[in-house]
Amino acid sequence: MENQTQESRHHARGPRPRRQFGRRDIPLKMTKKTEDVIPPIGDSIRVIPLGGVEEVGRNMTAIEYKDDIIIIDAGFQFKDEDTPGIDYILPNTKYLEDNKDRIRALFITHGHLDHIGGIPFIIDRIGYPKIYTRQFGAVMIKKRQEEFPHLKPLDIAIIDGNEAITVGQLRVKTFPISHTIPDSMGLIIETPYGNIVFIEDVRVDNVKGVPTEEEVEQYKMFKDMNVLLLTMDSTSIEKPGFSLSEDVVIENIDRFIKETKSRLIIATFASQVERIIAIIKAAEKYGKKMVIEGRSMKSNIEIIKHLKLAEVTNIIPLEDIENYPPDRIVMLVTGAQGEEFAALMRIANKTHKYVHLKPTDTVLLSSSVIPTNYRSVINLKDNLYRSGAKIVTYLDSDIHASGHGNRDELKWIHQQIPYKFFMPVHGNHYMLCQHAELSQSLGHPKENIVIPDNGSIVEIYDQGQKIRMLKEKVPSNLVLVDGFSVGNVQEMVMRDRKMLAQDGIFLVVVSINTKTGKLKKSPDIISRGFVYLRESQELLNHARMIIKKTVENTTAGMNPIDFDLVKATLADEVARFLFQKTAKKPIVIPVILGV
Amino acid sequence: MENQTQESRHHARGPRPRRQFGRRDIPLKMTKKTEDVIPPIGDSIRVIPLGGVEEVGRNMTAIEYKDDIIIIDAGFQFKDEDTPGIDYILPNTKYLEDNKDRIRALFITHGHLDHIGGIPFIIDRIGYPKIYTRQFGAVMIKKRQEEFPHLKPLDIAIIDGNEAITVGQLRVKTFPISHTIPDSMGLIIETPYGNIVFIEDVRVDNVKGVPTEEEVEQYKMFKDMNVLLLTMDSTSIEKPGFSLSEDVVIENIDRFIKETKSRLIIATFASQVERIIAIIKAAEKYGKKMVIEGRSMKSNIEIIKHLKLAEVTNIIPLEDIENYPPDRIVMLVTGAQGEEFAALMRIANKTHKYVHLKPTDTVLLSSSVIPTNYRSVINLKDNLYRSGAKIVTYLDSDIHASGHGNRDELKWIHQQIPYKFFMPVHGNHYMLCQHAELSQSLGHPKENIVIPDNGSIVEIYDQGQKIRMLKEKVPSNLVLVDGFSVGNVQEMVMRDRKMLAQDGIFLVVVSINTKTGKLKKSPDIISRGFVYLRESQELLNHARMIIKKTVENTTAGMNPIDFDLVKATLADEVARFLFQKTAKKPIVIPVILGV
Repeated sequence: MENQTQESRHHARGPRPRRQFGRRDIPLKMTKKTEDVIPPIGDSIRVIPLGGVEEVGRNMTAIEYKDDIIIIDAGFQFKDEDTPGIDYILPNTKYLEDNKDRIRALFITHGHLDHIGGIPFIIDRIGYPKIYTRQFGAVMIKKRQEEFPHLKPLDIAIIDGNEAITVGQLRVKTFPISHTIPDSMGLIIETPYGNIVFIEDVRVDNVKGVPTEEEVEQYKMFKDMNVLLLTMDSTSIEKPGFSLSEDVVIENIDRFIKETKSRLIIATFASQVERIIAIIKAAEKYGKKMVIEGRSMKSNIEIIKHLKLAEVTNIIPLEDIENYPPDRIVMLVTGAQGEEFAALMRIANKTHKYVHLKPTDTVLLSSSVIPTNYRSVINLKDNLYRSGAKIVTYLDSDIHASGHGNRDELKWIHQQIPYKFFMPVHGNHYMLCQHAELSQSLGHPKENIVIPDNGSIVEIYDQGQKIRMLKEKVPSNLVLVDGFSVGNVQEMVMRDRKMLAQDGIFLVVVSINTKTGKLKKSPDIISRGFVYLRESQELLNHARMIIKKTVENTTAGMNPIDFDLVKATLADEVARFLFQKTAKKPIVIPVILGV
Repeated sequence: MENQTQESRHHARGPRPRRQFGRRDIPLKMTKKTEDVIPPIGDSIRVIPLGGVEEVGRNMTAIEYKDDIIIIDAGFQFKDEDTPGIDYILPNTKYLEDNKDRIRALFITHGHLDHIGGIPFIIDRIGYPKIYTRQFGAVMIKKRQEEFPHLKPLDIAIIDGNEAITVGQLRVKTFPISHTIPDSMGLIIETPYGNIVFIEDVRVDNVKGVPTEEEVEQYKMFKDMNVLLLTMDSTSIEKPGFSLSEDVVIENIDRFIKETKSRLIIATFASQVERIIAIIKAAEKYGKKMVIEGRSMKSNIEIIKHLKLAEVTNIIPLEDIENYPPDRIVMLVTGAQGEEFAALMRIANKTHKYVHLKPTDTVLLSSSVIPTNYRSVINLKDNLYRSGAKIVTYLDSDIHASGHGNRDELKWIHQQIPYKFFMPVHGNHYMLCQHAELSQSLGHPKENIVIPDNGSIVEIYDQGQKIRMLKEKVPSNLVLVDGFSVGNVQEMVMRDRKMLAQDGIFLVVVSINTKTGKLKKSPDIISRGFVYLRESQELLNHARMIIKKTVENTTAGMNPIDFDLVKATLADEVARFLFQKTAKKPIVIPVILGV
């Protein structure tokens, strides 16, 4: 056998690395250092969102003044249908990597994954800057870091909700805000031209649309402040009015815990830490035992205990559940979104080792439905209903509220803070646009509002008089975590996965006599995800004929044989034939062996 | 080269069809005819939902009495994340195919695809029964049938909204109901034990929660009727109260058409035929020209013209759009759900040939967001907002109402019809359960309500005294339309597509000397959707070492070489290695050629 095996795109072999890829494989490398193209900053202040302004998730923003960069948050985003098979999407930190000597601090607004989840993948690349975070966030970060033992220890400074820190030439003050996890905060970054008030995820505690006294009190400090720039969460801008108060949610859940005369199973997001604390306290109050199921739930309960945020004395092991009367049991579980292996899903689909639903059980789904989980929540609810248990959702009872302020909550915050410039953050582009419209409707001129994209360089210039977006951008292409790989050159892999998911793959292995160009034997066909081959014998036999004819027609009179031409012709002919016969377009890969 | 090429699962070759598949390939064949196992019907009435009761979509129900079967609807469902790459999901009609000589009629409740879309794929299998449909549905069915020229002509009987037809031993009356498409109807199937009132998709026209006089009048006929069984649409049972009245929607859109002083683009579902008629009339009234874009929209406008449902004199060709002042133009387009190639999406992402959005344009998204389209609607809105045009959605203005009654509408219909038995239809299982709860809350005993699955045999027995579900079911596994293939044995293909979408495929081609078991040359590797090979040279080199070592260790001393064993060992070792190195699990396929 001569060494004439051919390669197609993505087809690599032995000792000839240079010839292994076709022309479509050119990687999207950033060869220039970013500072080569971005104009010098001068006396301006720059705010550079690196993630979170074209999506819900992966929040990260850099603030730059003279020689200093401070970063706010380092979150990730979960995959969506455009990124099949990947684990997470990260903010693009190329700009920070190129400027890591100027990074003075990473501030964390709160401990949710869309604000801290990127740390293990990013921290090494940006030179392990000091992380300033309040206590709860610190514990969340440290706990997560344990899963990445190859990383250096983090330099974490635990700060208060009302603290002032000097980093480089900037002074940063913190202030507590309301969200769904303890120790959420906003930042006031003092600049020579006024303060940047940086608010990420936020809601406004309220009683039927009237903000509580605590909220009013909290925002009073802004009354006479010189606020240069305000930023704020936009994720719930489309929802009208004020959102349901978390107090009402907690009261309702408290009542369920008190009054349910059977086993009560409460499913919620592990990230709803304040609600979890309230549930623990209520169970304690009514003398009920708690069972905790689900890894993230257990982990967060450990943190709650560790930080003494609640007396936790009533948790019993899962195996003991049958030792107590059903009306003494409250289970707190993960899986309200129908996540495949989460506790409630295993309970619902009868694969849970210990917990079997009974018609006497009551299940509270204390969460809304994240739209991308719509299909799994349907599966979850279908399965729960099949058990005969009583199912309660946020649609029948007020047992869930969002952590993101609705339109009127955001509006109320706008009204508490007399700002000059506004930049909406956190949300898809259209949400930011609607948030900008809200600011305009409150009298702010359009030219004082910027709607950034990821990588936009927002510049406050002219001694703080004006704001603009530079035409230059910092790198912003997607950075994906895919197994152990973290990178930004996988568009082709994503595209192939999408094509494979639609029509599968069809491989043709042909051995030819290099002298005559004739097939040595009938071609081999390997296929996955295309058609059910067993019921497609006729198709396969026909395909083999086409393959033989195509190869032998192409090689006829050819000397030496042009393997690339034969392969290209074969791929085209087979693809055309398969499409004609099946209306499907599998990826066709010919392998030709010269013997 | 000896003829020792090996096959793995889905790996078929030349002239040896019997050996081509592994043990996982056993097809899920229904070998028994269904009547072998189902007890005889006797004097009972059977109602057999074949689709639509475990999902939203693919509605189809068989009603059986003595020697007669009548079918109601033959819809399809669009794919979801569990069925990648397929076109449609059909009801399983195996039972009907086995009993086609007893089918007397196919009744169509209305012309939406989830009620008629299955016809071209099913009609031939069930022996072309006569189709009874009102006029609008008839035109929709015929129009669609044109795309399937290989089928026989359909036998369509166009009937009225108030008609009585005798089919076999059963008499069927029709009555008009409110939905979003003209000529929607319910059926009254007269049986010796009372009437089956079969209502599929339905809403109740109302003014702020008070049903209109027409509705009250329509349902009066049931007041003293002997109703044995009622069925009803469950898709919007979770939504509280009454839905927004379509009249309000039409009034609001009318106002937009009247008052918008610039180009107005209205996107809605082509299936919202009543709304489309209202829009045409309003444009006519205010002397505006209409431009229609999108294939299904144009098609339905043709039907509206054909049936003279509106005077359509003001439509201009798209190319003439610039000949009129912008405030004289109303565009009616498809694509409100962000469908990839629909008109509005092409306009939004700037790939439309003629229509370019301007900041002066107003775009009405006169539709809600179907949850599975959530991601594409975000893309659509993001792109629309980038144009600077004014965007109006159902969230800001009352410009969309559903065609499916909310809970209180359904409740109102329940209260108009004094029925004995109730069977909820159309919806996911949990929706049917909630609808059953509604019926119970109105005083109907639990034993008089059945919640069927697809394939359930619901039997009214004992001279109509009792209702039950048999333990036997008719075939109900998924039937998928995948290109030209229509069948039910594709679970493995689906599973492969899902795996390919996650981790891709990794092929290893090895030539070995059949005498020594040694590799003839370095192995070839072909991969798609796994990792970016160009940046993975080290991984590939390492993989080649593993492959060589594994093959040669396995073949050492083996005579003759057991190719199956070598292949299995190689697949395992390579998969393990790749997972260790990348945390990904591509499908690994070894091809071993003996030379």
